[in-house]
Amino acid sequence: MKPFGPFPPEFVDQNGELIIAGQAASDWLAAHGSPLFVYDAAIVAARIARFRAAFPQVDLHYAIKANPYPPLLEAMAPLVEGLDVASAGELVRALAVKGGDVISFAGPGKRDAELEAAITAGATINLESAGEAARALEIGDRLGVTPGLAVRVNPDMELRGSGMKMGGRPSPFGIDAEQAAAVARQVIAAGADWRGWHIFAGSQSLDTAAIIETQGATLALAARLSEEVGWMPPLVNLGGGFGVPYFAGDTPIDLDAIGGRLSEGLAACDLTVAGTRFAIELGRWLVAEAGVYLTRVVDRKESRGETFLVVDGGLHHQLAASGNFGTVVRRNYPVAVAHRMGAAPEEAVSVVGCLCTPLDRLADRVALPRAEVGDVIAIFLAGAYGATASPAAFLGHPAPAEVLAVGS
Amino acid sequence: MKPFGPFPPEFVDQNGELIIAGQAASDWLAAHGSPLFVYDAAIVAARIARFRAAFPQVDLHYAIKANPYPPLLEAMAPLVEGLDVASAGELVRALAVKGGDVISFAGPGKRDAELEAAITAGATINLESAGEAARALEIGDRLGVTPGLAVRVNPDMELRGSGMKMGGRPSPFGIDAEQAAAVARQVIAAGADWRGWHIFAGSQSLDTAAIIETQGATLALAARLSEEVGWMPPLVNLGGGFGVPYFAGDTPIDLDAIGGRLSEGLAACDLTVAGTRFAIELGRWLVAEAGVYLTRVVDRKESRGETFLVVDGGLHHQLAASGNFGTVVRRNYPVAVAHRMGAAPEEAVSVVGCLCTPLDRLADRVALPRAEVGDVIAIFLAGAYGATASPAAFLGHPAPAEVLAVGS
Repeated sequence: MKPFGPFPPEFVDQNGELIIAGQAASDWLAAHGSPLFVYDAAIVAARIARFRAAFPQVDLHYAIKANPYPPLLEAMAPLVEGLDVASAGELVRALAVKGGDVISFAGPGKRDAELEAAITAGATINLESAGEAARALEIGDRLGVTPGLAVRVNPDMELRGSGMKMGGRPSPFGIDAEQAAAVARQVIAAGADWRGWHIFAGSQSLDTAAIIETQGATLALAARLSEEVGWMPPLVNLGGGFGVPYFAGDTPIDLDAIGGRLSEGLAACDLTVAGTRFAIELGRWLVAEAGVYLTRVVDRKESRGETFLVVDGGLHHQLAASGNFGTVVRRNYPVAVAHRMGAAPEEAVSVVGCLCTPLDRLADRVALPRAEVGDVIAIFLAGAYGATASPAAFLGHPAPAEVLAVGS
Repeated sequence: MKPFGPFPPEFVDQNGELIIAGQAASDWLAAHGSPLFVYDAAIVAARIARFRAAFPQVDLHYAIKANPYPPLLEAMAPLVEGLDVASAGELVRALAVKGGDVISFAGPGKRDAELEAAITAGATINLESAGEAARALEIGDRLGVTPGLAVRVNPDMELRGSGMKMGGRPSPFGIDAEQAAAVARQVIAAGADWRGWHIFAGSQSLDTAAIIETQGATLALAARLSEEVGWMPPLVNLGGGFGVPYFAGDTPIDLDAIGGRLSEGLAACDLTVAGTRFAIELGRWLVAEAGVYLTRVVDRKESRGETFLVVDGGLHHQLAASGNFGTVVRRNYPVAVAHRMGAAPEEAVSVVGCLCTPLDRLADRVALPRAEVGDVIAIFLAGAYGATASPAAFLGHPAPAEVLAVGS
């Protein structure tokens, strides 16, 4: 028997039935088909409100790579100051809901056509290398448009306890801190519209002390680099890195503690006095817990003492839950039988997807109430890096349905 | 410095330029865009010819999940006896090029609509459970069509050295060998069109002795189960499991040794005398080595002593090459600078994709001739589980182009 992670606290049940935005999980499935991703807009809004309370002086940017579902973007756009994109495709989605001047574009392999689209839209390009800086300036010249340029910095420290380390070492992301000021001076001298710094030290950290320490170091680095350049940065994107609890034993970060310490840091920072704005860029933390993946049991079988619930979904929709994306040790996402919430576990079962591969295991030997063919399995933490971060075409099954649930 | 796997022997170069089906890699890119999957039809045909020579009495089935690119299916269909599919979507693709009676459908989570489509097409349904058997019979009754049913057996042995173990243990795939005869008798008694056995003990094995041993055990199991049932199986699908060399130190299987031993086994088998046909089902072995993923260098950068080639492709097209799909330890696929084949390595570089995630690394610290922005990187072994087994929508980049290269 293996444990699974905690349910996001916002989900409630009525008579054992999982309720999402005021409606039973089975009703969502009946209306939209199975498998289905449901994203609860109220949970996202509540996350944003918690951020506002903890970080009153800081802008909030949404990194749409976490979940670019258009109705979700439309709901979130008025609630955040900026959107961060990672491709020309994402830029198009962002421009549909927000002005180009509050969109920033990061990513190590921006093609010329992508730079052109971003410059035309007036977006901020987070420069990843000296070569990219030269290309952006050249394209700006050719178009006759002043490019909005920021320097993404590969910091000299990294975020401890980070799920993905992105700083303190050789990296395809950003310009090494040692060279960052020189590149900034070059693009300013070339007449670019200087937008400031983007410093991202890691992601998916649940270590509150490490996030506080990293934010302090990021602030100090931004101040030091700005002094080297001799120009005030209009904006410093402090990165994100706020993790969410996926697995047994994970606990949420202490947002208020992080916000409190950052406020102190900002109050003591010369850049604040000079009028620089600061932003935190979040993807996963804003949306992961708002999503549930619902999938129906197609078969129930015993094999040599193990019970399998075979569902109509699988890793082609929720790759990360199968443990095949960015994790070394497979662990179980929070999982439930959607009409038997709160019931005592009756058996150990594995929930496997419909794909004809042993990789397709959504829950491994978990204790659940008994489920029969036709019942609905809910897999939580499906709001980020789910539908778009999975090999949807694998084995030729249909794409999942998605819906933004707006409460009554 | 880390090693990378061997180039498939069929690829040649002219003046250092990688040639695919008589044409330079850069010409393929110029004609079809970058990134691009090129599949060389002649290499697939050569693999099939080698199979024929080694297994003269055995049918060959292609498991289209490995690569369902329609022009490739069209080219392969006349060269194989059967196609194996894993969803109703794949069934549609298979029916476009082959008759329903030579298509078989395996997969643990077949929905009612999928069973209905397979029964209507006259395809063989490889039953994964007693529950699925009951559903298939019921749907056949309802449609007034006799369903073609085989029993997929979860064998009591497994394929040693197999990349993915699929037998000898509790499994979502197939009916435990202990129960298989009973289910076969039930479906025969219910009037189904009895098609035989499907026994698949593992995949991606490079251990010739283990494959020989497993085929022997599979044959013995099929004979024993058939005796228990008391009916001759028209077809026994012996599975596949033939691996291809992806990584440094991997060596190809000895096909002739396997074929020779299987011929002896078949000659001594009662089922052969009774007229049973035998099939081997291959996916990866037929197509993996025929494919090359070509992607252009967008940026070249140094960071703290490491050199990165940033390309316009990435794990959204070739997830497995990034080490994030079904592998625990990340190792390098064979990789080359496409116009400097055979040149001496000059530097250690990492080839990273354009996605804004540290997971997107296509080659980790490999020794290559120097490549500049605009040059083309070739990643071999891209013919199986590439384009369709990758999260194409991740980060909103365009889908890759694909082309079937037919030699001049």
